[in-house]
Amino acid sequence: MNLRTDLALEKREIIAEEEPDGIICERTEASGAAVTRIEVINEAGEKKLGKPVGKYITVEMSAFSEDSRIFDGRLKTLTDELSRLLPKEGTILVIGLGNRDITPDALGPRCCELILATRHISGEVARSAGLGKLRPVASVVPGVLGKTGIETAETVRGIAETVKPSAVITVDALAARKVSRLGCTVQLADTGIVPGSGVGNSRCGLNRELLGVPVISIGVPTVVDAATLVCDMIEDTGHTVEESLRRRIEKEGAAVMVTPKEIDLTVERASRLVAMAINCALQPDITPEDLLALVS
Amino acid sequence: MNLRTDLALEKREIIAEEEPDGIICERTEASGAAVTRIEVINEAGEKKLGKPVGKYITVEMSAFSEDSRIFDGRLKTLTDELSRLLPKEGTILVIGLGNRDITPDALGPRCCELILATRHISGEVARSAGLGKLRPVASVVPGVLGKTGIETAETVRGIAETVKPSAVITVDALAARKVSRLGCTVQLADTGIVPGSGVGNSRCGLNRELLGVPVISIGVPTVVDAATLVCDMIEDTGHTVEESLRRRIEKEGAAVMVTPKEIDLTVERASRLVAMAINCALQPDITPEDLLALVS
Amino acid sequence: MNLRTDLALEKREIIAEEEPDGIICERTEASGAAVTRIEVINEAGEKKLGKPVGKYITVEMSAFSEDSRIFDGRLKTLTDELSRLLPKEGTILVIGLGNRDITPDALGPRCCELILATRHISGEVARSAGLGKLRPVASVVPGVLGKTGIETAETVRGIAETVKPSAVITVDALAARKVSRLGCTVQLADTGIVPGSGVGNSRCGLNRELLGVPVISIGVPTVVDAATLVCDMIEDTGHTVEESLRRRIEKEGAAVMVTPKEIDLTVERASRLVAMAINCALQPDITPEDLLALVS
Amino acid sequence: MNLRTDLALEKREIIAEEEPDGIICERTEASGAAVTRIEVINEAGEKKLGKPVGKYITVEMSAFSEDSRIFDGRLKTLTDELSRLLPKEGTILVIGLGNRDITPDALGPRCCELILATRHISGEVARSAGLGKLRPVASVVPGVLGKTGIETAETVRGIAETVKPSAVITVDALAARKVSRLGCTVQLADTGIVPGSGVGNSRCGLNRELLGVPVISIGVPTVVDAATLVCDMIEDTGHTVEESLRRRIEKEGAAVMVTPKEIDLTVERASRLVAMAINCALQPDITPEDLLALVS
Repeated sequence: MNLRTDLALEKREIIAEEEPDGIICERTEASGAAVTRIEVINEAGEKKLGKPVGKYITVEMSAFSEDSRIFDGRLKTLTDELSRLLPKEGTILVIGLGNRDITPDALGPRCCELILATRHISGEVARSAGLGKLRPVASVVPGVLGKTGIETAETVRGIAETVKPSAVITVDALAARKVSRLGCTVQLADTGIVPGSGVGNSRCGLNRELLGVPVISIGVPTVVDAATLVCDMIEDTGHTVEESLRRRIEKEGAAVMVTPKEIDLTVERASRLVAMAINCALQPDITPEDLLALVS
Repeated sequence: MNLRTDLALEKREIIAEEEPDGIICERTEASGAAVTRIEVINEAGEKKLGKPVGKYITVEMSAFSEDSRIFDGRLKTLTDELSRLLPKEGTILVIGLGNRDITPDALGPRCCELILATRHISGEVARSAGLGKLRPVASVVPGVLGKTGIETAETVRGIAETVKPSAVITVDALAARKVSRLGCTVQLADTGIVPGSGVGNSRCGLNRELLGVPVISIGVPTVVDAATLVCDMIEDTGHTVEESLRRRIEKEGAAVMVTPKEIDLTVERASRLVAMAINCALQPDITPEDLLALVS
Repeated sequence: MNLRTDLALEKREIIAEEEPDGIICERTEASGAAVTRIEVINEAGEKKLGKPVGKYITVEMSAFSEDSRIFDGRLKTLTDELSRLLPKEGTILVIGLGNRDITPDALGPRCCELILATRHISGEVARSAGLGKLRPVASVVPGVLGKTGIETAETVRGIAETVKPSAVITVDALAARKVSRLGCTVQLADTGIVPGSGVGNSRCGLNRELLGVPVISIGVPTVVDAATLVCDMIEDTGHTVEESLRRRIEKEGAAVMVTPKEIDLTVERASRLVAMAINCALQPDITPEDLLALVS
Repeated sequence: MNLRTDLALEKREIIAEEEPDGIICERTEASGAAVTRIEVINEAGEKKLGKPVGKYITVEMSAFSEDSRIFDGRLKTLTDELSRLLPKEGTILVIGLGNRDITPDALGPRCCELILATRHISGEVARSAGLGKLRPVASVVPGVLGKTGIETAETVRGIAETVKPSAVITVDALAARKVSRLGCTVQLADTGIVPGSGVGNSRCGLNRELLGVPVISIGVPTVVDAATLVCDMIEDTGHTVEESLRRRIEKEGAAVMVTPKEIDLTVERASRLVAMAINCALQPDITPEDLLALVS
């Protein structure tokens, strides 16, 4: 069956086995957030999970739409998880993927508006502004293929050759299988982005093979695939989705997307939370409150 | 069964009878558009259709997202249908309903940005600008209850008492039952707006009872209710949706909405088409091309 | 001489006399802000200052563009000054004046997006949300005459008749004489709004005469009149601006406006500061931090 | 004297001589537009005009804010002038310079939203869509240094190395000396962009030296430098601006910008006119009406 989800957590749930070969999974409860760590360790695991060898960390928390405050356990948990995936030194290049004009796909571009770009600030200027030592950060919104005529991967490679980062962070909207995952989940991975994520546009891979440095992807599910939703519901009745019906569902579902009703609030707050986790992980010498004041 | 749709056309399809009591229905093909006229003529018809006595005109056309040009049969058909519903004299008050910040609900506010407001332009100014005689038009975006603290109906009544229009036109996003109706359908009605339309917020009725003048509503379906979509799909398999499953579907579906993937384009173009139909119906002495130039 | 400013403070500076008849003026330094209170007490004062009898309070502070944090003395000073001008009981109607699409004129509409509207929230709902007793607040953005065809004063009067507030607060962008006043000044007045403010569109007065209740206006200067700026500069050289030159300056200046280079940041932060001062003054039982979380 | 203008036309006006060495100037009236061609032919001309050797074409027309229609002589004149500067073959890379969030600086980014990107469309797809042969076009909005941490020139060089265009077109907002030039002027040049244009941020040069291919810059003046405006006015009185006054004017003027009151309309329409001229010059086999329908 072809269930559409970008979450390793949901792909893991599909596998019936308790301890599938090549996949390690552990779950912990942090302050205000549940963290699931899935690691794909070999080719057998890749085939089972349908995702490349690497680490996938899912952080589940209370709904973004319910509270606008971020200085609680959620920000700290995300910051800590991200910090562990990043190299300790060097310039970081943050890439905001997606289409600014389609709300559920705008997470990446809107997140980048709140990233503290520092690569152009000299040490002297930073010191005179009382900021201490700043880690160099650059931030780019490459736009979407249909508007630019350039594959995102081409744009990012061109810029990475100039900026020469020690790692790239991508931020993107994801698709989940279950409605209950929307607006309350963040996934981090050290394998970059593979084609087919987000609101349905396949893209070239943005990963270490292409860019020569680690690519950490941060994603927030904002849509559910309509066909997946309908098939799940039908099968939950105990019935089988026959082939002719499946084709109809796939066809009709391909034109639509399922989003939370409060999608604007979800994207606004998720963008801010993710941006602040990136800022906090990259500038540990500045307090979260001061970082928020610097970017908003 | 509780199928959620704001389209009289879809409610009519649900009724199995061929010639239901109290409902008259006819369908014609116009240039580039199919027009279905449904008239509810008495209380029996009201009960059957679940809509008050009055006229419901559905115009089906090619998808808004496929072509940005509007000076074809679609604009003319809409303009003609709207003209027939409007009084020939007096000020017209156009009300853009919905929430500007949620794309599928932004149709009304965005449409109002393209309405040619003329009530404040003196005859002398209009003549000196070469515009000839202008029909007085006012246009208001009342905002949503959650942001204003005021029921839309209260705001509109207050403004209508000041403007004293001969008729009110409301523009709003609607919910359809079928995905195939999204992004290619416009409904006109002479019964105003009844609670429960759009992206799920019930509102007080905006109608002749409240405002004392005819209320012509123009709506474009931009969302499908998720629960309705899933139930339809399941029943199309020949199975029954049992009560416990229905409750689960209703609960899960209540938090999400189903929209076209190209919702931003759909809303942008539908807003322009509807606004231009209103402008053309109200200022028949100005060409559509000149009207578009005046508002964009 | 026809110097264009909406600030009572600047009009007072123009008057050469030390203690002009009918005008009382005092200046104090509050935490992080300088407060000047000007009171016009009779007709003689009205003629001298060119503003109606009433209180004009100017709060000068550090530039909005320099720091995004608001929980300092500035917010407290503004909240305290506003609280003194408001009635202790009854519904408050907040009106966001200006044009959302022109950045220096967007202060009012953007401020209203951050006003906590509560008029529609029942006591029971508020209590169950842990909010305690809420003062009823409604908030409206009436739009501009050129887009609506309705005078702002007409719209507000129509809504006020429905909402029946105990006072109205208007928020608007103002014009200052001096560049140094832009982006760091807030004026409060209990006389409502008189025509000619803001980015140059005259409007009908919004005041107690029209609405029957106190009208508290809050304004932030975001533009300097270009002709005023040029005339001031020339006269500072010790030369006279002759009549023919003045006419040329007036004509050329009428088409342009002078704004801070960081006008987008200025308007964003001023909107937030003013909205939060209104929220804090109206809901004293909720902390500023919680209020910010509720509206952003 | 240090008059700030990005227009070669205005720099030429400052030079008192009738036929300055190294500069050729001619003026013609086209349909609905006046075209001034200035050519700097040697180093003497460079020094005189303060601009590098190359061609500068200024097109003066009726105000953008007065008419939204573009299918008149203005579009044709701009298209023809631009066509003459472009190579006949190869991919064109369009760069939208400036800051999307500051209205007078948003010309470049907003123009790019209306560029028909075609580089990713295969010949087969184009033919099946009835578009015939498409010239490959890519379009990028690199953002501003303060937000990205990357010099625009670095970003563009990185992308150009990937896209390998036969020429680059830049679109940017400019500063003019005279208010009367705002909102009705377009400048084309074949020398790229030199530092110091636009709303006051100096940038590295984007030119043939950096990119290895012709760089055609298209600019529209949207601001006047405040200090320049004031100095001009004072000197028009027949008086001299003394050094101490000049310093004060420079200091105060540095914080503000002078823009047309209808700057939002100016930028919206100028973006569309420039984008359509680029589209028409690059896709001569498609009619302007069809091109507009494809991008809006």
